Amino acid sequence: MVHAVGNVPVREEGVSMTAKAIVNATVIDGTGRPPATDAVLLLDGDRVRAVEHASVVLPEGAEVIDAAGRFVVPGLMDANVHLMSLVPDFVLRYEDRYAELIEEAAQITLRAGVTTVFDTYGPLDALLEVRDGIERGERIGSRMFVAGQIIGYPGPLSWESLSRGNLLSQATVDRIERRFDQGRELALELAWRTPDGVGRAVGDYIERCGVDFIKYAACMHDVPLIVFSEPTQRAIVEAAHRAGLTAQAHTMSVESLRMEVEAGADLLTHPNVTGSEPIPDELLSVIVERRLPSSALIWTEKYRAYALENWSDRERVLFGEPVYENGRRMIEAGARMLLTTDGMIPGRRLLRPPADNGPVAAGPPDHPFELGESHFLWFVAAAEQGMAPMEALLSATRYVAEAYGKDAELGTLEPGKKADLLILDGDPLDDVHNYRRIAAVMKDGVVVDRDALPARRILT
Amino acid sequence: MVHAVGNVPVREEGVSMTAKAIVNATVIDGTGRPPATDAVLLLDGDRVRAVEHASVVLPEGAEVIDAAGRFVVPGLMDANVHLMSLVPDFVLRYEDRYAELIEEAAQITLRAGVTTVFDTYGPLDALLEVRDGIERGERIGSRMFVAGQIIGYPGPLSWESLSRGNLLSQATVDRIERRFDQGRELALELAWRTPDGVGRAVGDYIERCGVDFIKYAACMHDVPLIVFSEPTQRAIVEAAHRAGLTAQAHTMSVESLRMEVEAGADLLTHPNVTGSEPIPDELLSVIVERRLPSSALIWTEKYRAYALENWSDRERVLFGEPVYENGRRMIEAGARMLLTTDGMIPGRRLLRPPADNGPVAAGPPDHPFELGESHFLWFVAAAEQGMAPMEALLSATRYVAEAYGKDAELGTLEPGKKADLLILDGDPLDDVHNYRRIAAVMKDGVVVDRDALPARRILT
Amino acid sequence: MVHAVGNVPVREEGVSMTAKAIVNATVIDGTGRPPATDAVLLLDGDRVRAVEHASVVLPEGAEVIDAAGRFVVPGLMDANVHLMSLVPDFVLRYEDRYAELIEEAAQITLRAGVTTVFDTYGPLDALLEVRDGIERGERIGSRMFVAGQIIGYPGPLSWESLSRGNLLSQATVDRIERRFDQGRELALELAWRTPDGVGRAVGDYIERCGVDFIKYAACMHDVPLIVFSEPTQRAIVEAAHRAGLTAQAHTMSVESLRMEVEAGADLLTHPNVTGSEPIPDELLSVIVERRLPSSALIWTEKYRAYALENWSDRERVLFGEPVYENGRRMIEAGARMLLTTDGMIPGRRLLRPPADNGPVAAGPPDHPFELGESHFLWFVAAAEQGMAPMEALLSATRYVAEAYGKDAELGTLEPGKKADLLILDGDPLDDVHNYRRIAAVMKDGVVVDRDALPARRILT
Amino acid sequence: MVHAVGNVPVREEGVSMTAKAIVNATVIDGTGRPPATDAVLLLDGDRVRAVEHASVVLPEGAEVIDAAGRFVVPGLMDANVHLMSLVPDFVLRYEDRYAELIEEAAQITLRAGVTTVFDTYGPLDALLEVRDGIERGERIGSRMFVAGQIIGYPGPLSWESLSRGNLLSQATVDRIERRFDQGRELALELAWRTPDGVGRAVGDYIERCGVDFIKYAACMHDVPLIVFSEPTQRAIVEAAHRAGLTAQAHTMSVESLRMEVEAGADLLTHPNVTGSEPIPDELLSVIVERRLPSSALIWTEKYRAYALENWSDRERVLFGEPVYENGRRMIEAGARMLLTTDGMIPGRRLLRPPADNGPVAAGPPDHPFELGESHFLWFVAAAEQGMAPMEALLSATRYVAEAYGKDAELGTLEPGKKADLLILDGDPLDDVHNYRRIAAVMKDGVVVDRDALPARRILT
Repeated sequence: MVHAVGNVPVREEGVSMTAKAIVNATVIDGTGRPPATDAVLLLDGDRVRAVEHASVVLPEGAEVIDAAGRFVVPGLMDANVHLMSLVPDFVLRYEDRYAELIEEAAQITLRAGVTTVFDTYGPLDALLEVRDGIERGERIGSRMFVAGQIIGYPGPLSWESLSRGNLLSQATVDRIERRFDQGRELALELAWRTPDGVGRAVGDYIERCGVDFIKYAACMHDVPLIVFSEPTQRAIVEAAHRAGLTAQAHTMSVESLRMEVEAGADLLTHPNVTGSEPIPDELLSVIVERRLPSSALIWTEKYRAYALENWSDRERVLFGEPVYENGRRMIEAGARMLLTTDGMIPGRRLLRPPADNGPVAAGPPDHPFELGESHFLWFVAAAEQGMAPMEALLSATRYVAEAYGKDAELGTLEPGKKADLLILDGDPLDDVHNYRRIAAVMKDGVVVDRDALPARRILT
Repeated sequence: MVHAVGNVPVREEGVSMTAKAIVNATVIDGTGRPPATDAVLLLDGDRVRAVEHASVVLPEGAEVIDAAGRFVVPGLMDANVHLMSLVPDFVLRYEDRYAELIEEAAQITLRAGVTTVFDTYGPLDALLEVRDGIERGERIGSRMFVAGQIIGYPGPLSWESLSRGNLLSQATVDRIERRFDQGRELALELAWRTPDGVGRAVGDYIERCGVDFIKYAACMHDVPLIVFSEPTQRAIVEAAHRAGLTAQAHTMSVESLRMEVEAGADLLTHPNVTGSEPIPDELLSVIVERRLPSSALIWTEKYRAYALENWSDRERVLFGEPVYENGRRMIEAGARMLLTTDGMIPGRRLLRPPADNGPVAAGPPDHPFELGESHFLWFVAAAEQGMAPMEALLSATRYVAEAYGKDAELGTLEPGKKADLLILDGDPLDDVHNYRRIAAVMKDGVVVDRDALPARRILT
Repeated sequence: MVHAVGNVPVREEGVSMTAKAIVNATVIDGTGRPPATDAVLLLDGDRVRAVEHASVVLPEGAEVIDAAGRFVVPGLMDANVHLMSLVPDFVLRYEDRYAELIEEAAQITLRAGVTTVFDTYGPLDALLEVRDGIERGERIGSRMFVAGQIIGYPGPLSWESLSRGNLLSQATVDRIERRFDQGRELALELAWRTPDGVGRAVGDYIERCGVDFIKYAACMHDVPLIVFSEPTQRAIVEAAHRAGLTAQAHTMSVESLRMEVEAGADLLTHPNVTGSEPIPDELLSVIVERRLPSSALIWTEKYRAYALENWSDRERVLFGEPVYENGRRMIEAGARMLLTTDGMIPGRRLLRPPADNGPVAAGPPDHPFELGESHFLWFVAAAEQGMAPMEALLSATRYVAEAYGKDAELGTLEPGKKADLLILDGDPLDDVHNYRRIAAVMKDGVVVDRDALPARRILT
Repeated sequence: MVHAVGNVPVREEGVSMTAKAIVNATVIDGTGRPPATDAVLLLDGDRVRAVEHASVVLPEGAEVIDAAGRFVVPGLMDANVHLMSLVPDFVLRYEDRYAELIEEAAQITLRAGVTTVFDTYGPLDALLEVRDGIERGERIGSRMFVAGQIIGYPGPLSWESLSRGNLLSQATVDRIERRFDQGRELALELAWRTPDGVGRAVGDYIERCGVDFIKYAACMHDVPLIVFSEPTQRAIVEAAHRAGLTAQAHTMSVESLRMEVEAGADLLTHPNVTGSEPIPDELLSVIVERRLPSSALIWTEKYRAYALENWSDRERVLFGEPVYENGRRMIEAGARMLLTTDGMIPGRRLLRPPADNGPVAAGPPDHPFELGESHFLWFVAAAEQGMAPMEALLSATRYVAEAYGKDAELGTLEPGKKADLLILDGDPLDDVHNYRRIAAVMKDGVVVDRDALPARRILT
């Protein structure tokens, strides 16, 4: 019984992790194999030992968790989040508390079943501090992999859509921006340089900063301007590969997407977002055939109805009908989709005027950018747009692990993998809403005390 | 011996304050009487008992402080400070820590010999929290009296000289502004109302908020626009008087100054600041004859030389030659001057572009707005402009107490008054630089552990 | 017969103006006397000779105009117009053609029966050029009286509600602003000075520039900030009076209105516009009792319904219910109202965002600021709010002439007055819509060729 | 004698163009051949018939122009000008007079010896109107070839470096921008589309609008953002080529320059402007080897000294040392340089704040962007940086004609070519300052009445 598990301490040295057995469950192991009913999932410390038949003899002294009638799936993995809000209000107010906010967000996601998150843009120092704290067991939260700066991107106080006025001193702006662009070395100005020069800068960044993967700006945020030429994009991807990391690109137009694909990116960030121009069939075919992992932004019908009524003209241009259709076409064509929310706390409202970005404003229905919530909606949207239930599960687990090269450890419930899993009260293959019916979240073989999260509430 | 006093705990219930005697000192008691050499200053708990001749018999058990060769003066009183920085960078960044910053600032001033400060504009909730904490002995810092909002003034994110762009959400701006204008009740919009209506709003503010005195905007900050008509100004002053409080006005033009005088204000805030128009002789005569306490901004020759070279055109208009001359004329004519810094931490740079307002920028020489430092410079400036040494001392003590109606308790070293005092290593009447040579600061009869201040450094 | 009058040349030297007789008309002479039916209006050159009974013997050779069934009233007088648009788009685009636009506007008003306009704010050089051209008979248009700059007011590129960005060079801004503020002598900066100083500046302006009356800013445009103190306002009024001119003030709050009244202004500019605060009864009584001419902005119910739905929050604050009620109360109390449109071409949309200020945007119904149209709507609004028909006529003729001290020449159809008149097809006292049914407009005793106006269309 | 030529009428139907002979001159024919001393240049109507020896028999009735001691060169050709100022002040003020300003500018250039200009960005309607008027002989001015909009570029009110504030209505901005971007079809938004889509838009533009050549934005103006991908750039170039036109690109970074080269552009617009990154040697070699015509911006040492002292930080980044070095390296390496001023009236001050862009501000020494003046400075700069005298002459004549595919008619004084030429008082191959010593300008075989130009002065 889950309620018998009791309070779960942060793992400490000297605390023995005994063997565990989750019994009587239906196990969907994330490999794509059919669900194993009446199965026993054996864990050894922070690892999966095996999935066995009910008749297996349990290890002596094993803690038994009875999951009768329940469903076990791998812990969910979100391919694109921003644990630190990028809204200027928060970036300014919490300048001295980024790590606290990031930890809070990582606990919100963990509580909601997302055992691993890939943070694709944020203040690197604070992200690394929390990532490492969680890794060392000194902090609680989803397993984090971080990119830090989007190579060639402006910082959060410099997006094109912002007019800064003269409210802030340049010293403040610089101090904050540098936490993103690492002393302007990785800001937009990088685009002045040659492919070689940019490749070297990225190599230095990887070597110096300890990031887990690379994300670069193939284009800007809300205008179709290209940041890096194709040779430069290739140089960035190669620099990542030389260091054994994956590379992905922020793209928002059909050409920047095509360039990313040709540059050899390992994962496509929101490839369906191409403004008012649909992805050409030929390019879509390449994406499908190469099984390029796609962090597409797909949103529910309910949100879509809201958006059609409430979006500004600019938002319609950037995120309108072709974007929706691109997502649908990708699913239909069998593209390799990844669970992706691009979520923050509080969820941003696309390009809403700042007046609406404050924490108190009521959000839209089925808000697609709210950490801890939007991944559930992703399953709804995927189903609405025709994705098969098992494919959706894989998109939220194994595919993400593979896309980021983390499948040796994560993504499935196979022997030797990390024991990150969810116990659900209903069959998620039967009804996507069952992803919400979380009986337990286990990370590193330990049941998470979800009621205790977040430990310190600042934004939630 | 001062060094024998040891560590001074925050006063607690049950700790007996024994009698103290400061012996062998020259006492300048702040009444204007000549210094008493070889005097004994007797204290009883937090009060002054008497100033006696060396021959007096000390009370039994009295702690004796030998101040041979030293000079005792009343604790300094700054008539106009802003313990919380009003620079937007800080207002935003420290939104959750205003009280901490205010406490830090109040410790910086206390350490520097300013035992009492009058905070004339700031976030009321945090100011009251610190004021009351100090009053109850739970916090350490200068004795504080606070005005909160300048009636009819914009908040720190809305000064005319700022362009906010669209960086911040309206929610953030509103949230912060409301800590100043008390829910917009006291912002510029108040100026739509009739004199009666404004008077009532001020009465409500006093009754509801527990402020110590009232400051209103007779005119705006950097344009010569008048906020309140004469009848309205009278209604504000009367509302303050009905509640037993003093009233003062922010003025920046000759007409707004004249209006304040006619409205019966008790204290004039920077009356010498009248832009490019000198104070008319007739108005100056009224100010002198009525002995209207004047928080004039007077600056050293060294700063003036800097300013003449470095100020922007706009600053020259607002703070140029007539402003300097007004100050000099006031001193010459015998106006009732008060020690005034208008200081903050870090000291603002007048209307400098925000780029220069950050904490790291090198300040000007003899920076006139730096808390903990600028009051020393005030004495230098006053001397340069012809103020007699004893007059300067009274301007920094008794006159301030009288101007704010606090002379029953503060301002001089007379029997029954609060034992707030400085022991100086040199005679301040001989050389104004001796105000810096502080051997000890005593507040409420207790020697301040200056080395321990500020207890927590955030901005300093 | 009007149609027999033929083409009317611009008056030239040497062209003899023969006597004229308008016969068979009902003459409403603007004095307040009952209409004279079956009357004969005798004109001599540009002057009225007499109103006689039908039986009078006509002067030999007199041109006879048969106005059987028609109604003759004095030419209408609009107490507050802006012949040159103040919208930045036009101010910039037509910088070299202000005089042409002003002439076009003066022809639009003349065609619509407004034989005299008082222009209360605009580029003085161009206004004087057109005014004098019309006066000399070299141009055609309504008789113009001009104030030029509103003393103490910002120019059209500097209103508080505008953010200029860095689009324009300072040289362009200065060049244009100086056409309004006469080299910054009369801009907001004037408010730094003493009452005497301001009075002298106004005296100089009158002497140097040849304006017809004075308007000053008692307060700013869309915030309740006072520009000039009461003594300064008095000094301005006195400077005008010394030169034999009238003075009026732009006011937008109850206190600035009260100050204007106390300063002795001769005419009140939109006294009903006091934001969200109703005019206090006492002040209203003074206005009524002193018969202070009031250029109130009163608008039709149809526009009011539109406004209630379409106005921004800011417009609601500035022009909402109390403003409407003030107007109604003034009419009810018998205040001395003047026909006032504050009109331009194209009519501005209050404080609408500039996007809506372009000439192509569809206007609101019963647009109250459209020259050539809005004065007709004023009669409708006045009737809706209870003004008696004869009072409305006087408000549009004699009262305006008296308010500006022009009643020796204008405002009524009495012997010796200027022969400015309208021949209407219906009785305006019976139905205010009859003011639109213009059979003929006569100015200076000459029938205006309305079909030929405007002679050159730029904005219309 | 030149002074005998008399007043030159605009060419009209029926006016016979007789044969002309310029005798006793040294003819430098622009082919690169050595100067022909004591030569006779025979013209026939608007064409060159031949360059002969002094002994040739002149055609009967030929008008003889004695150019003894003088030097005849082909009319100069400026590869990059903006006849209509792009400074917002002028764009707004002269909205109704663009054609007049363009004509004035084309007369300023003609008077100064530039018989042909290539206008690479401006309001197409007005440019075509003037171009065609000149072509038909109805207007006087330099021969014009126009590109209209820079494909994919923002209009003059939308440059990245401008903040528009809310001064202007959107209607005004749209109305003006559309004269550049042809109804937004060719603005930045084009970059959303596929290469095919962009190619079609350019084809439509050419077909619909009658432009003479194509210029597109390979990158933005003052940030290193790429507008079009390489395939898109190729599609644009091909669309131009299909219509028989040349294509060039605005580039400001090494990568956008490389992309332009690879896309097959016919002419490189300011290829030396690559911000802080020098052109890589390899790319420079390609440019040199392919003899790609280069509209480099090269400036005199005197201007460079000024710039080093006066430029803003941003200007230093964009136009600093590498830009100068690039130009020098190109000349040294024998790149195919073209006379290029990028000039306007008044000459813009690079990215100076708008305050300095007004017509009255004093310009820098050797202002490189002043039409009518800066082409003389180009020869000085070219010489300073090592360009041989004959190469400079060809760069200003034949090379430009060839680059634009106009060499069948223009660029040299060969039989059958247009008789566009200058008669100079000194040898330009001996001293570049002799280009200023213009004795006569002849265009289409007719001597220009330089004293009569510009016929109507607006900006000059």
